[in-house]
Amino acid sequence: MPYFTLDASSLQHWLTNHADLASRLGGSPADWTIREVSDGNLNTVFLVDGSGGSLCCKQALPHVRVVPDWPMPLERALYEARYMRATADAVRPAAPELYFYDDEMFLLVMECLTPHEVLRTALIRDEAQPGFSAVIGQYVARSVHATSWISQPFEHGSKLLADFAGNTALTRITVDLILTDPFRPCSRNPSPETGLLPDVEALQADKPLHRAVGSLQERFLTARQALLHGDLHTGSIMLHNNDVRVIDGEFATMGPIGFDCGLYLGNLTLHACAAPDKNALITSEITAFWNSFTTELRTLLKTGGGDVWALSDETQRRDLLDNFLLDILRDTAGFCGLEIIRRTVGFAQVADYTLCATPESRTAARRKALQTGRALILKAPSLHTLEDLLSVLTLQ
Amino acid sequence: MPYFTLDASSLQHWLTNHADLASRLGGSPADWTIREVSDGNLNTVFLVDGSGGSLCCKQALPHVRVVPDWPMPLERALYEARYMRATADAVRPAAPELYFYDDEMFLLVMECLTPHEVLRTALIRDEAQPGFSAVIGQYVARSVHATSWISQPFEHGSKLLADFAGNTALTRITVDLILTDPFRPCSRNPSPETGLLPDVEALQADKPLHRAVGSLQERFLTARQALLHGDLHTGSIMLHNNDVRVIDGEFATMGPIGFDCGLYLGNLTLHACAAPDKNALITSEITAFWNSFTTELRTLLKTGGGDVWALSDETQRRDLLDNFLLDILRDTAGFCGLEIIRRTVGFAQVADYTLCATPESRTAARRKALQTGRALILKAPSLHTLEDLLSVLTLQ
Repeated sequence: MPYFTLDASSLQHWLTNHADLASRLGGSPADWTIREVSDGNLNTVFLVDGSGGSLCCKQALPHVRVVPDWPMPLERALYEARYMRATADAVRPAAPELYFYDDEMFLLVMECLTPHEVLRTALIRDEAQPGFSAVIGQYVARSVHATSWISQPFEHGSKLLADFAGNTALTRITVDLILTDPFRPCSRNPSPETGLLPDVEALQADKPLHRAVGSLQERFLTARQALLHGDLHTGSIMLHNNDVRVIDGEFATMGPIGFDCGLYLGNLTLHACAAPDKNALITSEITAFWNSFTTELRTLLKTGGGDVWALSDETQRRDLLDNFLLDILRDTAGFCGLEIIRRTVGFAQVADYTLCATPESRTAARRKALQTGRALILKAPSLHTLEDLLSVLTLQ
Repeated sequence: MPYFTLDASSLQHWLTNHADLASRLGGSPADWTIREVSDGNLNTVFLVDGSGGSLCCKQALPHVRVVPDWPMPLERALYEARYMRATADAVRPAAPELYFYDDEMFLLVMECLTPHEVLRTALIRDEAQPGFSAVIGQYVARSVHATSWISQPFEHGSKLLADFAGNTALTRITVDLILTDPFRPCSRNPSPETGLLPDVEALQADKPLHRAVGSLQERFLTARQALLHGDLHTGSIMLHNNDVRVIDGEFATMGPIGFDCGLYLGNLTLHACAAPDKNALITSEITAFWNSFTTELRTLLKTGGGDVWALSDETQRRDLLDNFLLDILRDTAGFCGLEIIRRTVGFAQVADYTLCATPESRTAARRKALQTGRALILKAPSLHTLEDLLSVLTLQ
C-alpha cells in the first residue's frame, strides 16, 4: 500500500486487513476505540483498544510533526523497527514488543503501554516510584552486550553499522541540535529570556568549551562501540509502578556507549536543576543507574564472545573492562553536559522547567543547568569515578 | 555475464566486447599480448598490451589463490572498486586509474603500471629510489582528508560506513591474521624454525602483551576515523623512479588512521630487521613518511568542512590536530608492532627475510622483529613524538 498519512478511520481499515493484529484487539472493528495521543516532536501515535487487547500504532510523518515545513524522511520508522528487533531479546521486558512493521506505510504496531506514564511527566508530577533508573542502567548494559565488538563476532557489529549508517536524517538532528547549535547563533535556537542572554552569549563565545565540544563531536561520530538508542531522555521512557519501558529508538546509531548514558543522566540532572528539592532523589537515581549499568555490563562482558579481547582471560578482561568503563564514564559526563545545555537553550527544551515557580527561579535554574553542563564537558576527561561526576553536578 | 574464471583467451574475448577498453589497447585483438602476472595471495592479474596502450585486469577468484580450499567471497573486488572511486580524486596520481569495474565478473580493469616494480621487491633488490615514503605519507593524508568526519559533512562518512561495512570477508582476515592468530596456537600459523620456537611460545604466553593487543583489537573495530586502504604494506605499492602508486585496496574499511600508517611503517621496519645494513635508509623513509603525512594532513584539515570541530577556529583546530596526530602516532606504533609480528611468525610472512645470508642470521632477524613488535605494542600508549617511536625501533 503506498504511503499516506493515517487517521483514526483509515487506521481502523488498515488493521482490519491485518488479521493477526485484528485478533489481538478482538471483537468487531466497529467496537474498537482509536485515540490519537501524539506527544513527541516527530510522529503520529494512535492507541487502539478492543475487547481482547490493545495496540500502539506509530506512523512517521514526512515532516517534523510540530514544525510542518521541516521535512523529515519517513525511513526513520524503519530504523526504529530495526533497533527494536536488534535489541528485543536482550532487553526484554524493558521495551514494548514490536508486533509488526509496515515498510510502505512506515508504521510500527507494538504493545500498548497502559496505564504507563512518560517518565518526564511522572517526575514533574512527582509520581515516579524511585529506583526506575536501575532498570535503565540494566537496559543500556544489555543492549550494549547484544551489539558490541567485545561480546559478538565482529561481523555482527559490521551488519549493525551497515543497517544503521543510513539513519542520517535523525543523526543530523543530533549533530546539529545537541553537538553544535547551542554553541553558536542559530535560527533554530529559541530566543532566551532576557535574564539568560548574557549566559547564552558567554556560551557562544566560550572557546575552551568549544574545543572540548569538538572532542565530543569527534567521539560521537568515530567511536562506534555499540548500538545506541540515540535519544534516551526521560521522554523516551514510560513506567507504571516498577514496570519501566524504553520507547522511541528511531535515533538508533552505532556510537559511543556514554552517549546513551549521558543523555539519560543529563535529563535527570535537568530535572534537579528545575526542582532542587528533588536533588536527593536525582542523586540516588543517578547512582542507581550507574551501579546497575556497570554491574550488569561487568557480568555480561565477563565471558566475552567477541573478537575484541579474544586473547584475554577473565582477570585481564576485568582490567580491560575497568578502562573501558572509565572511558564510558568520561563520555557520559561530556554528553550529559551537552544534553543539559541543549535542553536548556536549544531547539527542544524540556518541560521540567515549568516546575519553577517564578520567572526568576526559572532563569536561575537554567543558569545552574548551563554552568553544570559546561563544568561536565570541561572536566569530563579528568573524572575517575561516579563520585567525581556527582561532585561536578553539585546536587547536594 | 555470469561469473567464470578468466584465462588469457576468454579475457581477450571479454575485452573485444568492451569497445572503450579495446580502443585503449588499439590494433587488432589478435595482436594483443596477454600475460598472467598473479603475484598476491588472492586474485588473478593479467597485463594486456596492444599497439596503442595497455591494461591491467584483476579478477577475484572464489578462493584464496595460493590456498584453493580456503573459500573467499568474490565481492572483495567490489570493495576495491569502491575504494578506488572513493579516493581517486584525492590521491591522484598516486594510484592507478580505474577504467572499468564489471560487477558480475568481479573484474577490475585499470591503468597498467609498467615498468613499475613492487616496492617490496625493489627494496629487496636495493633498487628503490629513496624518498618514496613521502608519497605514501601524502597518499594517506589525502585519503584521510577525502573521507574523514573532520573534513566532510558526516553524511559522507555514514555513506562510507554503509558502503564498506559489508567487506567482512577481508576484515575477517585482518582480525584473525593480524590481530589474533600470532598470539595463540593456530593451525594457520606456519611452524617456526626450531631456533625461534621459544620466542613464539613466549609470544603466545605473554599476558601483558595480549592485554595491549586487546586494546588494539578494540581500536581497530571501534575507531572509525576515515576510510583505510587496509593492507598498506610494501607489496601494495609499485614504483618506477619517483612515480609511486598504491594498489590493492580490497581490504578497505572505515577504521583508525594509524592502521594504514602502522602497516606501512611495519613493513619498512621488517625490511631493516632482515637487512640491518639498510637501517639508515629505513629510518630516513620512516621519517619522510611521517613528516609528509603530518604536514599534508595539517594543511588539508586546517580549513575544516566537516561536522567535527565545526565550532573551532584555526588556532583551536591546530591544537585539536596536535591531539589527533598524537592519537594517530600511538595507533601507528601499536599496529606497526602487530604487523611486524604477524609478518614474522603468522600466515603471510614477508620475502624480505630471504635477504638473511644464513639460517642463523634469519632467526636473529626474526627475533629482533618480534622484540621490536612487542616493544612497540607495549610502549605505544606512552609515545609522544616520532623520535620516541624511532627509539623503540632501535634501527641505529
